[in-house]
Amino acid sequence: MDDVTVVCWGLGAMGSGMARALLERKGVRIVGAVASRPEKAGRDLGEVLGVGRELGVRVTSNPEEALEAGADVVLHATSSFAKEIYHQLDAAMAAGSDVITVAEEMAYLWQSDPKLAAEIDQLARKYGVSVLGTGINPGFVLDTLIIALTGICTGVRRVKARRVNDLSPFGPTVMRTQGVGTTVEEFRDGLAKGTIVGHIGFVQSCGMIADALGWKLDEIRQTREPIVSATRRKTPYVDVKPGMVAGCNHTAHAFMNGEEVITLEHPQQVLPGLEGVETGDYIWIEGTPPVNLAIKPEIPGGTGTIAIAVNMIPHVLNAEPGLVTMKDLRVPACFMGDIAKLARGEGGRREHV
Amino acid sequence: MDDVTVVCWGLGAMGSGMARALLERKGVRIVGAVASRPEKAGRDLGEVLGVGRELGVRVTSNPEEALEAGADVVLHATSSFAKEIYHQLDAAMAAGSDVITVAEEMAYLWQSDPKLAAEIDQLARKYGVSVLGTGINPGFVLDTLIIALTGICTGVRRVKARRVNDLSPFGPTVMRTQGVGTTVEEFRDGLAKGTIVGHIGFVQSCGMIADALGWKLDEIRQTREPIVSATRRKTPYVDVKPGMVAGCNHTAHAFMNGEEVITLEHPQQVLPGLEGVETGDYIWIEGTPPVNLAIKPEIPGGTGTIAIAVNMIPHVLNAEPGLVTMKDLRVPACFMGDIAKLARGEGGRREHV
Repeated sequence: MDDVTVVCWGLGAMGSGMARALLERKGVRIVGAVASRPEKAGRDLGEVLGVGRELGVRVTSNPEEALEAGADVVLHATSSFAKEIYHQLDAAMAAGSDVITVAEEMAYLWQSDPKLAAEIDQLARKYGVSVLGTGINPGFVLDTLIIALTGICTGVRRVKARRVNDLSPFGPTVMRTQGVGTTVEEFRDGLAKGTIVGHIGFVQSCGMIADALGWKLDEIRQTREPIVSATRRKTPYVDVKPGMVAGCNHTAHAFMNGEEVITLEHPQQVLPGLEGVETGDYIWIEGTPPVNLAIKPEIPGGTGTIAIAVNMIPHVLNAEPGLVTMKDLRVPACFMGDIAKLARGEGGRREHV
Repeated sequence: MDDVTVVCWGLGAMGSGMARALLERKGVRIVGAVASRPEKAGRDLGEVLGVGRELGVRVTSNPEEALEAGADVVLHATSSFAKEIYHQLDAAMAAGSDVITVAEEMAYLWQSDPKLAAEIDQLARKYGVSVLGTGINPGFVLDTLIIALTGICTGVRRVKARRVNDLSPFGPTVMRTQGVGTTVEEFRDGLAKGTIVGHIGFVQSCGMIADALGWKLDEIRQTREPIVSATRRKTPYVDVKPGMVAGCNHTAHAFMNGEEVITLEHPQQVLPGLEGVETGDYIWIEGTPPVNLAIKPEIPGGTGTIAIAVNMIPHVLNAEPGLVTMKDLRVPACFMGDIAKLARGEGGRREHV
């Protein structure tokens, strides 16, 4: 059986991670790679990934060159924002490829930009391909996992979840967009100017949960507060002195009929452990029955995003054409057998595995 | 839009619970009810359920009478064993109904009886209907939830999970089949004679996990050990004195290439809290990244099973014909909107919700 063919579009931390993860899987083959940074273009993908061997795939900075292979799927990791990547998605779809993107806004564009979502959906149907936005958050911890857990409830009144992570592995860009190392005034100022943004994905997560539960939301409100450090917190990228900002406590509140039905909290900071804050993913469902879940430590954002994008390949290949979402597709799984067999079967029943 | 029509087959604790749960949902209507106990037959379903109003559905002990309505779906809760219910499933499928059963063996019959699974699959395809086995365990906690969590791993080496529950709400049948209140000798004897069985579903859960991960298992070994009580544990149904058996510690070990890759533990006993044992559902995935999850207290088996059977209705109505499994279907969700609209749409995209 022919391998599932993949083009990797974007070779930053996420895109390179996906490419490396693909090399470990069976029945799947990278046939093209697009880098936005010109210094990567022209080199062999194996060299760019640092895997110690040639892969016979020349990295290009020209997407058309990679897409013309007409790969089964494009793994896309270039930007967070739907409007910025719309033309990239269009090009990939036009080449006849299904698309999996980790652009946060694509995780549930039906909520954040329903008009653009409908356009992409129409295009995907026209080309007969599926487009999925996924990732660890949005895409799994604060939406898909919550939705799956409500599956054991006869009724749900309210959902609350909290993802507490440690930003210390991250570099200058994340420090800047989360306001780490600023004064409280600089933090407020950055929020006002839009240079400090906090988490991208709450609108998508709230929308996905609400639609999965059949809730019509009135409003989604977000708050971003500085996490003021009581201790010195030093990483290779930042030095936060007491009284300075160690991160951004970003919260979303979604309302239905005037009542708060979804609360998602995502305090992101460097070294929370120094102040006794344990990292973890926490979900509370006020339902029948109630659910009280903890994952400690939290599912790491980088590896998790890389994994779920790769793991959704067979599910997306089996999906109906259109802009699909995590709640529409089969339960994710780390399938380590022959992806080509699974993807070209009828959906993973035993005899096809 | 026409309501989704449902026949409830089996009106014991699970079946009645499902019927009651359906009454709370929109876009779904019970059109038939089958009770095995003759004293329930001929009465209005509302009276049998004790909901304080007539529902205009006469309970029957004759399945054909209920099935002739040709309901969209049959919710089936009569027995744990596939061979015992095979003819019931056949009758429901022949009536053109999709089937959701909570028979434990049906949760993944592809593992425990692949020949019978293939027969049911063939029949379902012939009739153009889908058949799903589900429940809380097997069906969710020790299989589907684990599978979903592996979705965030780039690789998985081993899975371990433990479900610790309290049997004290349960009556004489459960006490007997779990050996609660026996001496250690009586327990060993009951195991040998097959009157004490422990948990039903480990083979199914191991099989579903393995197939979802692309693992070929060599063998599944099970052990059942008495939980000998150090204290007196008294419930309305049983009085366990120190030295007697408070429950059954049932464990499954699944091997691939001679190595244990799946370990599922399910110690079931009355009042574990008296000896400091906290109930809960615990999952550990040895993977990249590792996952360490706890749900405390455990998801209750009764309500959970009732809920997931009802919640899978739209997913099953949208499934391809055949014997399907939880890992093949969309992520479960407690959808509280109009089920008819969701089920008759194209799979839960925003515009159909």
